[in-house]
Amino acid sequence: MKSDLARIVGAEHVLDPVAPYLDDASVASGVRGRADAVVRPGDAEQVAAVVAWCYEHGVTIVPRGGGTGYAGGAVPLDGGVVLALERLRAIRSFDPLLWRMEVEAGVTTATVARLARENGLLYPPDPGAAESSHIGGNAATNAGGPHAFKYGVTGAWITGLEAVVAPGELVALGGPVRKDVAGYDLRSLLVGSEGTLGIITALWLRLIPAPEAAVPVAAAFAGAREGAAAIEAVLASGVVPSAIEYLDAGTVDAAAATFPAPLGDDRRFLLLVETDGTASEAAAAAAEVREALSGAVVHAPATPADVRAFWEWRSAVSHAVTAKRGGKLSEDVAVPVDRLAEAIEETVAIGERHGLEACSWGHAGDGNLHSTFLLAPGDEDERRRADAAADDLFAMAVRLGGTVSGEHGLGMLKNGQLRRQWSPAAVALHRSVKVALDPKNLLNPGKKLP
Amino acid sequence: MKSDLARIVGAEHVLDPVAPYLDDASVASGVRGRADAVVRPGDAEQVAAVVAWCYEHGVTIVPRGGGTGYAGGAVPLDGGVVLALERLRAIRSFDPLLWRMEVEAGVTTATVARLARENGLLYPPDPGAAESSHIGGNAATNAGGPHAFKYGVTGAWITGLEAVVAPGELVALGGPVRKDVAGYDLRSLLVGSEGTLGIITALWLRLIPAPEAAVPVAAAFAGAREGAAAIEAVLASGVVPSAIEYLDAGTVDAAAATFPAPLGDDRRFLLLVETDGTASEAAAAAAEVREALSGAVVHAPATPADVRAFWEWRSAVSHAVTAKRGGKLSEDVAVPVDRLAEAIEETVAIGERHGLEACSWGHAGDGNLHSTFLLAPGDEDERRRADAAADDLFAMAVRLGGTVSGEHGLGMLKNGQLRRQWSPAAVALHRSVKVALDPKNLLNPGKKLP
Repeated sequence: MKSDLARIVGAEHVLDPVAPYLDDASVASGVRGRADAVVRPGDAEQVAAVVAWCYEHGVTIVPRGGGTGYAGGAVPLDGGVVLALERLRAIRSFDPLLWRMEVEAGVTTATVARLARENGLLYPPDPGAAESSHIGGNAATNAGGPHAFKYGVTGAWITGLEAVVAPGELVALGGPVRKDVAGYDLRSLLVGSEGTLGIITALWLRLIPAPEAAVPVAAAFAGAREGAAAIEAVLASGVVPSAIEYLDAGTVDAAAATFPAPLGDDRRFLLLVETDGTASEAAAAAAEVREALSGAVVHAPATPADVRAFWEWRSAVSHAVTAKRGGKLSEDVAVPVDRLAEAIEETVAIGERHGLEACSWGHAGDGNLHSTFLLAPGDEDERRRADAAADDLFAMAVRLGGTVSGEHGLGMLKNGQLRRQWSPAAVALHRSVKVALDPKNLLNPGKKLP
Repeated sequence: MKSDLARIVGAEHVLDPVAPYLDDASVASGVRGRADAVVRPGDAEQVAAVVAWCYEHGVTIVPRGGGTGYAGGAVPLDGGVVLALERLRAIRSFDPLLWRMEVEAGVTTATVARLARENGLLYPPDPGAAESSHIGGNAATNAGGPHAFKYGVTGAWITGLEAVVAPGELVALGGPVRKDVAGYDLRSLLVGSEGTLGIITALWLRLIPAPEAAVPVAAAFAGAREGAAAIEAVLASGVVPSAIEYLDAGTVDAAAATFPAPLGDDRRFLLLVETDGTASEAAAAAAEVREALSGAVVHAPATPADVRAFWEWRSAVSHAVTAKRGGKLSEDVAVPVDRLAEAIEETVAIGERHGLEACSWGHAGDGNLHSTFLLAPGDEDERRRADAAADDLFAMAVRLGGTVSGEHGLGMLKNGQLRRQWSPAAVALHRSVKVALDPKNLLNPGKKLP
């Protein structure tokens, strides 16, 4: 195997299967894989040749981006080839005046965002770990983030996609053209398919002029019910915020020490609402938001540096929660926004039922929770209880009309969960699409199973 | 057949196959179908039962919305059942404060838009013929319209979809939840599939607060090159217009008589650029746009009534062009925006090569042309030349990096054209998806063939 693959990518790019290529950000869950080789192709044609070789020889292919996923999607389960896309990092074209960019899969999310910003443009999706995560991985998981509330998730910014599909063919679906209904929307089908239907090698991204200003405010409430009522008041104000985030009581407790403003002890629920646009527009919208929040605002960063610090604090919330006990199990369920308070409260109740401290934070406007159970690392009993609690969590999300995954996908950790929320006929469709596009079941097998 | 179907939907809803059920808006192209029966189910369960009966008995099913398509997608080709969704017109739920609505497939686009507007909200997609077209048909074709430039096409507003899939099962894909990456994006796969993968029975739509004001301006230029340069200047201004439309010389000639302002004889190319937002925001953005258009503005409707009249005039452009000679063949190609001027000029040149008067207008910001050849109704020779001209047009769109269809889909009239723009491997994917979802090839057969 290795000599054949070496002929395609060069011997120096066929590596022994070692860390970090065997895990992703879910490694804390004890997930670690096993592979026969790691292959680092240098361009899309080499990706196609590697896939063709593997498909012919019945070898499984696990594509890998920045390894920042939380669902074990990039973890090789049982041998085969890890196909690392880190050398595909060309900016193939960039036309700032036409608001578009063509980038290869291994370009980091931060690079895309920076390039856009330096040219007066915005690439809106902002999933976490931007410095490490790859734009190809963002597409393969249809990654979200705080600003998805106004701007949509990764897929909304992809007009074209180059991918290698079985049995090893490079295809282009779309391109720089902004509207295209000639064929089935196979682009959207591949986006979010977690490498199980094809390997994304490059993307055409749409961009927009960067808003001149972003004005976040933080408002504190007694609890989730009061916070949820405030969200509905914000929605009724006629403003479209760029982000509506929340932290529940346990999360505030973990993250308050580094919050840039004092929080009263009775303020147990934090809402972060940002508006953007021209400076005057963002300020006017922020005034509407403040009115809707009726006096609960506790912090309003005023300078760009303060706004940046505010969002950096927000990004660190997950780490602050982990720090509480050293470990955690966190699940990205989503519910209709009118069920958010219920889901937040029930997360805590589920934890209690299983003897675990629980909290949540997330993208309130999208009804997307990061429901979290705190753990001591290595405590097997707690881990088992957390898995049982996660199961209750998924059941709750579905009962409230939501989804078991708003952001991370199924990967390997949520295999089988889709069956809770889709009917047998819909699950059968899911399967038949997989069989149609990957008849030998070699593309990231054992992942995203319904 | 009829008695079986009558048992499902009631005898009064099984009709003889008569007009208007045998054609759509492409009837002027001489397209007229043949069916064995027209069935009008009263709800989604009846749709499922009808599909189940047809699937069991090997009878083809042609779903039908408002019949406003231009590609013959709703025309029954060779017998079978026309499944008219016009009785599925319930608003299943509407939560204006939560920016969402669940509607059945047969609700008209205008009803959705009106309901939103009356509650301070906006349903942004605005394909033509809103009073007749059905929201289900809009989804099945992923319909666009002028405001897609800022707001995206129909699919961007669908969070959930109920559909009947083979062999007659009702499935729900998504719902009111705004983010969901648990399963493959089968919702997007069905959207735009023109009834060939399933029958859409209901939709969950996302809405947004209505912008307070919309400020369009019209600017006139000497030709397409000058107009395209102005579009790029607008894109560089930092403003995101809500629409950027154009009319070329031949179209201006056809529509100028009813234009609400005088146009000089040397002004052969019209750009319509709209900005929206709060009144002050829209006005400030309009000022930026005016600056980018550097003095070419010839009309700026100031009151809401004038703005409405302006857009009504825009909607009537297609009719004005038809009126010139009584008939036309119009194709909805799209190209990257930097190739727009080329595509506009080449449309006219292609017409000349085939001895036909040609013109175009459309959604400039999206690079989406309605490239049109004028015809005398009933002139078979002209018709043949127009078909040959359309063939050249598709070749041009693909050569410029675009698509044979930006809005209307393939239907039956553009069968086979996808092969020009997709590689054989991509076409094979398209086919395998169709086979996977419709193994007996009974769902709108003969349509959207790659």
